[in-house]
Amino acid sequence: MPKGQPEIVPDDGLSTRQRRNRPLVMVHTGPGKGKSTAAFGLAMRAWNQGWDIGVFQFVKSAKWRIGEQTVMERLARLHDETGEGGPVEWHKMGSGWSWSRKDGTEDDHAADAAEGWAEIKRRLADERHDLYLLDEFTYPMKWGWVDVDDVVATLANRPGRQHVVITGRDADPRLLEVADLVTEMTKVKHPMDAGQKGQRGIEW
Amino acid sequence: MPKGQPEIVPDDGLSTRQRRNRPLVMVHTGPGKGKSTAAFGLAMRAWNQGWDIGVFQFVKSAKWRIGEQTVMERLARLHDETGEGGPVEWHKMGSGWSWSRKDGTEDDHAADAAEGWAEIKRRLADERHDLYLLDEFTYPMKWGWVDVDDVVATLANRPGRQHVVITGRDADPRLLEVADLVTEMTKVKHPMDAGQKGQRGIEW
Repeated sequence: MPKGQPEIVPDDGLSTRQRRNRPLVMVHTGPGKGKSTAAFGLAMRAWNQGWDIGVFQFVKSAKWRIGEQTVMERLARLHDETGEGGPVEWHKMGSGWSWSRKDGTEDDHAADAAEGWAEIKRRLADERHDLYLLDEFTYPMKWGWVDVDDVVATLANRPGRQHVVITGRDADPRLLEVADLVTEMTKVKHPMDAGQKGQRGIEW
Repeated sequence: MPKGQPEIVPDDGLSTRQRRNRPLVMVHTGPGKGKSTAAFGLAMRAWNQGWDIGVFQFVKSAKWRIGEQTVMERLARLHDETGEGGPVEWHKMGSGWSWSRKDGTEDDHAADAAEGWAEIKRRLADERHDLYLLDEFTYPMKWGWVDVDDVVATLANRPGRQHVVITGRDADPRLLEVADLVTEMTKVKHPMDAGQKGQRGIEW
């Protein structure tokens, strides 16, 4: 629905330009495929606009490298070399965030998740990125590793013009409440139900 | 769900490798946001695997250039220059497909859509691409411009290892029947409902 017209015009005293440029919290949830893929498609669009992008992958192992990471990092390199598009940082929780140089201790996923969120809070306060992609961030909220009320208050009060997209199943109702845009991906049919294995180029 | 295990193993005589590499028909439908975005995210993943990608945009005006087109064409140029990733062709119906050099006659969207599908049929028979992205292709089917039974039979009998992803609302039940993977994007909340305008970097 590009350049769509809104169905109602709110009585909020904002100009069309202000309303057009309002920063969004977007949530992709539900059991279907496409939550992260659509978020990375959005990141591609944001790169094209020259936005500064921060990707934070919350559950996936650091050993696991998805195709999107290779492509987005390639686009980041293009930006550095030619000035095309925007800069991209890609951080993975896995065995420790890249900014955190812990010695090789055993993984503590709850602590890692809390540390990831603390860093994102700092960056939001500093207005570090234009788009934050918090991939699979619903799970640390669901599991109590990150406080939902803190997330909601931080998002609601973030300064400037920072867009945030959060993916994952079972998004908390409080998160949906603060979100501007929520899409639920519903699984109608999936090849794994018919015994199909995940495959290169489709699943990763 | 990367590298997920199937819930059942079918009694189809296929090896794991054969099952893993089975070509898929994927449909992204429903009224929510993310149908095309997830398809373009998938194309990014496919590019990274070195796949040959053909994008066919069925409804959008030729004047309309989405960010994904710029990025995918940039990735295609990278492929041509450095051999990274795969090749990408991007075709738009708009005021006539790029392969069709009609003189500037008035637009006939029904004929253009039929011509687009005829070309895709030829390419499927020739095994021209590894991934076909038929963006908003449900609409010409819905409007009777393209015969649904022909689409279904062509997809069901396509040779080789060609993946097809189709986006758009109101997918025909016959298309869902032949699809291996169907995701319905449901709109839970959309900023345009609150009078928010579509914006650069988010909607295009």
